[in-house]
Amino acid sequence: MNCLDLTYVDRMARQALEEDAGGGDITTLLTVGADVPGKAVIIAKQRGVIAAIEFAAAVISQTDDHVEFAPLVDDGSNVDPGQTIAQISGPSRAILMGERVALNFLQHMSGIATLTNKYVKLVSHTKAKIIDTRKTTPGLRRLEKYAVTVGGGFNHRFNLSDGILIKDNHIAAAGGVTAAVTAAKKGAPHLLKIECEVTNLDELNEAIAAGADAVLLDNMPLDMLKQAVEIAAGRVITEASGGVNEQTVAAIAETGVDLISVGALTHSAPALDISLEFVRE
Amino acid sequence: MNCLDLTYVDRMARQALEEDAGGGDITTLLTVGADVPGKAVIIAKQRGVIAAIEFAAAVISQTDDHVEFAPLVDDGSNVDPGQTIAQISGPSRAILMGERVALNFLQHMSGIATLTNKYVKLVSHTKAKIIDTRKTTPGLRRLEKYAVTVGGGFNHRFNLSDGILIKDNHIAAAGGVTAAVTAAKKGAPHLLKIECEVTNLDELNEAIAAGADAVLLDNMPLDMLKQAVEIAAGRVITEASGGVNEQTVAAIAETGVDLISVGALTHSAPALDISLEFVRE
Amino acid sequence: MNCLDLTYVDRMARQALEEDAGGGDITTLLTVGADVPGKAVIIAKQRGVIAAIEFAAAVISQTDDHVEFAPLVDDGSNVDPGQTIAQISGPSRAILMGERVALNFLQHMSGIATLTNKYVKLVSHTKAKIIDTRKTTPGLRRLEKYAVTVGGGFNHRFNLSDGILIKDNHIAAAGGVTAAVTAAKKGAPHLLKIECEVTNLDELNEAIAAGADAVLLDNMPLDMLKQAVEIAAGRVITEASGGVNEQTVAAIAETGVDLISVGALTHSAPALDISLEFVRE
Amino acid sequence: MNCLDLTYVDRMARQALEEDAGGGDITTLLTVGADVPGKAVIIAKQRGVIAAIEFAAAVISQTDDHVEFAPLVDDGSNVDPGQTIAQISGPSRAILMGERVALNFLQHMSGIATLTNKYVKLVSHTKAKIIDTRKTTPGLRRLEKYAVTVGGGFNHRFNLSDGILIKDNHIAAAGGVTAAVTAAKKGAPHLLKIECEVTNLDELNEAIAAGADAVLLDNMPLDMLKQAVEIAAGRVITEASGGVNEQTVAAIAETGVDLISVGALTHSAPALDISLEFVRE
Amino acid sequence: MNCLDLTYVDRMARQALEEDAGGGDITTLLTVGADVPGKAVIIAKQRGVIAAIEFAAAVISQTDDHVEFAPLVDDGSNVDPGQTIAQISGPSRAILMGERVALNFLQHMSGIATLTNKYVKLVSHTKAKIIDTRKTTPGLRRLEKYAVTVGGGFNHRFNLSDGILIKDNHIAAAGGVTAAVTAAKKGAPHLLKIECEVTNLDELNEAIAAGADAVLLDNMPLDMLKQAVEIAAGRVITEASGGVNEQTVAAIAETGVDLISVGALTHSAPALDISLEFVRE
Amino acid sequence: MNCLDLTYVDRMARQALEEDAGGGDITTLLTVGADVPGKAVIIAKQRGVIAAIEFAAAVISQTDDHVEFAPLVDDGSNVDPGQTIAQISGPSRAILMGERVALNFLQHMSGIATLTNKYVKLVSHTKAKIIDTRKTTPGLRRLEKYAVTVGGGFNHRFNLSDGILIKDNHIAAAGGVTAAVTAAKKGAPHLLKIECEVTNLDELNEAIAAGADAVLLDNMPLDMLKQAVEIAAGRVITEASGGVNEQTVAAIAETGVDLISVGALTHSAPALDISLEFVRE
Repeated sequence: MNCLDLTYVDRMARQALEEDAGGGDITTLLTVGADVPGKAVIIAKQRGVIAAIEFAAAVISQTDDHVEFAPLVDDGSNVDPGQTIAQISGPSRAILMGERVALNFLQHMSGIATLTNKYVKLVSHTKAKIIDTRKTTPGLRRLEKYAVTVGGGFNHRFNLSDGILIKDNHIAAAGGVTAAVTAAKKGAPHLLKIECEVTNLDELNEAIAAGADAVLLDNMPLDMLKQAVEIAAGRVITEASGGVNEQTVAAIAETGVDLISVGALTHSAPALDISLEFVRE
Repeated sequence: MNCLDLTYVDRMARQALEEDAGGGDITTLLTVGADVPGKAVIIAKQRGVIAAIEFAAAVISQTDDHVEFAPLVDDGSNVDPGQTIAQISGPSRAILMGERVALNFLQHMSGIATLTNKYVKLVSHTKAKIIDTRKTTPGLRRLEKYAVTVGGGFNHRFNLSDGILIKDNHIAAAGGVTAAVTAAKKGAPHLLKIECEVTNLDELNEAIAAGADAVLLDNMPLDMLKQAVEIAAGRVITEASGGVNEQTVAAIAETGVDLISVGALTHSAPALDISLEFVRE
Repeated sequence: MNCLDLTYVDRMARQALEEDAGGGDITTLLTVGADVPGKAVIIAKQRGVIAAIEFAAAVISQTDDHVEFAPLVDDGSNVDPGQTIAQISGPSRAILMGERVALNFLQHMSGIATLTNKYVKLVSHTKAKIIDTRKTTPGLRRLEKYAVTVGGGFNHRFNLSDGILIKDNHIAAAGGVTAAVTAAKKGAPHLLKIECEVTNLDELNEAIAAGADAVLLDNMPLDMLKQAVEIAAGRVITEASGGVNEQTVAAIAETGVDLISVGALTHSAPALDISLEFVRE
Repeated sequence: MNCLDLTYVDRMARQALEEDAGGGDITTLLTVGADVPGKAVIIAKQRGVIAAIEFAAAVISQTDDHVEFAPLVDDGSNVDPGQTIAQISGPSRAILMGERVALNFLQHMSGIATLTNKYVKLVSHTKAKIIDTRKTTPGLRRLEKYAVTVGGGFNHRFNLSDGILIKDNHIAAAGGVTAAVTAAKKGAPHLLKIECEVTNLDELNEAIAAGADAVLLDNMPLDMLKQAVEIAAGRVITEASGGVNEQTVAAIAETGVDLISVGALTHSAPALDISLEFVRE
Repeated sequence: MNCLDLTYVDRMARQALEEDAGGGDITTLLTVGADVPGKAVIIAKQRGVIAAIEFAAAVISQTDDHVEFAPLVDDGSNVDPGQTIAQISGPSRAILMGERVALNFLQHMSGIATLTNKYVKLVSHTKAKIIDTRKTTPGLRRLEKYAVTVGGGFNHRFNLSDGILIKDNHIAAAGGVTAAVTAAKKGAPHLLKIECEVTNLDELNEAIAAGADAVLLDNMPLDMLKQAVEIAAGRVITEASGGVNEQTVAAIAETGVDLISVGALTHSAPALDISLEFVRE
Repeated sequence: MNCLDLTYVDRMARQALEEDAGGGDITTLLTVGADVPGKAVIIAKQRGVIAAIEFAAAVISQTDDHVEFAPLVDDGSNVDPGQTIAQISGPSRAILMGERVALNFLQHMSGIATLTNKYVKLVSHTKAKIIDTRKTTPGLRRLEKYAVTVGGGFNHRFNLSDGILIKDNHIAAAGGVTAAVTAAKKGAPHLLKIECEVTNLDELNEAIAAGADAVLLDNMPLDMLKQAVEIAAGRVITEASGGVNEQTVAAIAETGVDLISVGALTHSAPALDISLEFVRE
């Protein structure tokens, strides 16, 4: 993550701790003495790609000034079942209090990185990049898009103001592909490119002629995708979307498209199984 | 949702809109006139259970005072592919600006309700209730636990202060099951029950003897679960956890346990496929 | 306080400082040089029980990085008039700026602890526990309930979601004690007990029969309380409320009830007189 | 309250509701149907002065759009035991959910207004005004100072930046009364007056000579107070503080001082007993 | 402004009111009765371009539900000295309380729009667009960039994530223009263009060859600017910056550059003189 | 700044960084390696008075724990073009990310201090003090008023509750100068003085007779100002306002008024030109 994100990580960690432990961890307070020391490890239970190790560190560290969190892997590392990914020592109470929240971040983010990595590997024999979408969990976009990059994917727009993507309804309202692209080119900030959704080859030609920088080839069959890539001929960036899954992504990539966007990366990635275990000596 | 939640819904909707559209929807502003009216429908693309229809309404309503959102189904409704679940009319700009955020809520929450409902149906021939865990997405626990109830499930603890659940590490720190349960009973607020994790039948007997109100039967094989239920004999509530999936849940339920907790409900439910489509006239 | 509360203490301290000193302490800035060192003590002016010494420390510490705050007593200590409870050294400006806010926390919280302790002593010859209510100052519930425990009392519910307490209006709406308790038992999270308010012995019997875990014996005369305790016979927890004051509490406790709830602990405790005095050398 | 305060009232009400009912009112949801209508009254159980009726209204109104709250008295009204002070109608669930928070505001604020009013009446045969201090509950200063005015009292400084009050430690640091007052006069914003604490008549003379606008006569015996008032002779405002209680306040006022400050108004006022009762028809 | 901005306007207006009137408008409360009606007009005292009329409306409206604010001009209107730009009616107290904050927004934003408009007119005989920079007042970027567009200008990047602008220090760190542009092209989200600062014609040629989409011609003399435009020949967007003021901007525009960025638009625009006057009848 | 302001500085710095760099500095991340060290200086490009050097430090420090910021001048220092005002060392990425925000604070605040200082020097041969107004940028009042003092000016009211200033509309609503002043004196907190706007000598006499502490001589010609000062004769503080600019301020001061308020200090001060430059070795 970039350096500013450390503040961001701290804030997210604090809010999540407040949600879970804001009223105190009554079980721990009643059963574990204040002076009981603890050692624990965080262990992967599944093969996958780790993301957000810094979130886990931030959560655990905020529970008590005397907890030490030592990560054994960096974000992006491939781990095997049983592999230790971090060591923790400090008051048992603090470790117990932060355990669930730390794991919730780690499992969710690593789940996204792992799924992304699967797609990236499936297209690694082509030039296609796997990119995400705006189909993210409300409030967590910045985290989830970071996890996509950890898995080897790339990011599409972060929000509605940092990219121009003209979709079918914009085209209809503007009165056609040419009208929509022309209007966007006229008013767009000069550092933003213009991408236009097209559903057939006529629209593709129209978008290119109107000066689009990129085209979203939506739900096209494979042969039409191939033709679209030939027509584009490097003049515009080509993005395929729709009907993308682990079974279809390789064939889509082999059509020669530049980008393949996959909503599932952020809206349907299952959590990676990771657990925290106390070490007895 | 209960009445207070309306404020909560509004706040969550506003934050999510700010995340996506806080800097303005530049594409829409450049291609769609301010006075273009629009009509749209929200349509299920998959079979499933709808949750958070009020979130979608709140999001869309906050984009403009002149948008009308008419839900056609209530939370908890089963929908079929192609079924319209809401109608929207108002300025096209507002509908386009809110579309993605509204769907992000609806798809995530309906995904949880739908997965929960699968589990509920798989155990409907038994008395077992499906319950969730604290393995939720950071910041969204209240929403996700609501979605579980929409799907027919029940809620375990919301956080560390509204229930006492003694796990293995508490037991180790306290010096055994009896010591841990006794300490908890002594200090617990009088409205909170005490649940104790046990991993074998000896611990189960010890927990019952010490006065636990409920026991968490963790990762027990089916035959041990059955014995545990017989030993409990209604004196304590029995909760099974660990190794629960769509293949195993029915057999676990048939052992006679009262509750089965499933982390996947909230940490691994895939989004339900739902889309927004403009209606041209 | 538990470890997470340190964040909470810091936040509350900062907000209170902002309320009082957010625009600067103009008197101090004009009359006291930036480099004037200071030593001060915090002194009890009344006999009582100290609570929130950490709040005083947090407030004073946030005014300047160079202030040192050394508590001489722990929360829960009994102090005599004239007893020094903390020593402070650092820039005079910082001490003067934080003085009032630190004392406001300390006096309010120690007032609650002191009043609670009076009640606790008045019933110490019985098995009754003194518990608080939800009659707290808006925004300060977590603090005030902590102060009750410092004084030797116990906490009732923290809020409307971490306990089930069926009152007369719930009973009326549900159609009677049996109906209300039954509905609550059916839907309650499995770790929450169910308490039911009863005003006479018939209702008591009905509540027990319906399966309540605890009963609130509201405003019952002493002899009825005694009968209620006999009927309960350990099958349900008994809580007396209403008409409790320093004159009546011992007799109420002697009826054998398990709990006595006292709203005055948090809504009417007078501040404990505590002052900060500079030490000249 | 002034008009801007409506926003403030709404925010405070929402925060307090979140504290108590943020997780839902589980008892009410389980025992009272969503469509059960309710009527209730808020009744004074003690003689006193009502304050914050608008807070009660704001709290109740925020629980549901369909609740109507009709106040029968204005802030500042004297009420008798048994007197109805407001009528409420709407969904029973909403009334039950907001009941405790609304009463918490009303009882705390009315308690302050009532205690203030006692002091005001005790000095009504003199020209002395009763004023408050900065000894308020953290976070509630604006509310509590408003309640003081409802009871007929006046407000001292709201915070450290809207008035200059030189106390003994400022004097010591500045090198004497004359030095402190002179420094303050030189740098003070031109709309702020300068008040100086004095503990004897020499200091009083010095403060007047140095140009103080007001003097705080701290803990002076009655005869010294009288002499101080004669010396002041209208040239400076005189404020008495220290040792003020219901037994002493009249004699202090009779010395002729302009102002008497009473910390107890805000730090030790017991709640006024007020309850909400459902009306059955 | 776009529709979502209404929420933003309301929030900014509320915060500014809290800053100025959060403790109440004591002068108005003491001298103006609660029932005194008022009528007022907002009048331009200088020639200029109005911006943020909605902010003035939002501020005034939040002081009281009964205030009506009728704008007579839209954002972007040219006004003459003495021209009425809005009419207000409602309680005098509310109008007085909101006056200063409303004018502060209006004067600041209209000042920016007016200055921008001067620059736009000075280059209107050329194809050059006037654009802003990130040299904005902390916390007000979105407002100030909106005011630039009201004056006829265009917006450069909103922040560091919605555009790529490689400056001299990036070039030095990356090891040259080619290396920097190449690295940016490789990792950039596909909808962001790449602009590169160049200080001479060699760097310009290198940036074009490396595939930059736009070039920032920093502090070039006029003849070099002309050559740069000829070399660019429409292959890259050209932006001039540095040494731009009202005296030099026309000549810079006449070199044929596409864009001229002016930091002064947002960091040095004097307020437009606007006042609020009560209308007596 | 006073000690509490450090928290304030940190918060403002963080918010401004979030506004500019919240989504990451994509250019820097793509072109500058994480391990590239950097050294930079902040240099004045214009003669002026520096303010907010601590803000620049806070901003730069928050971007990374390893950045060191060494100020070479204090707030209030006069600097010459080319003078180095701070040295920075640390990761290049962090310096680049914080550069713009740090400069935005420094340039805005130093601009205000510099303009204020010009006015202060223009009246230094008289006893008049230059004071600011409430015409500040929304959200930045505390900062901007601090910058005024750095430049040698003084502060008028911070907000509507820490001073009483009766203006023409208050007078009209109250029924005349005498009525307005009398009402204010009756209800004002005892530490606030009362200032009354007057537009001619009759009103001046009336305000003095009614007991005003200060008078605002609004838009009076020079000879009338002189007469007003003679009439006041030290009995009230005199403040001149209206028509004050760099050409007129000396003559206004020479009339003998105590204070001259200048809105332009905060609403129209141009930014001081300051830049950050990397040092290559």
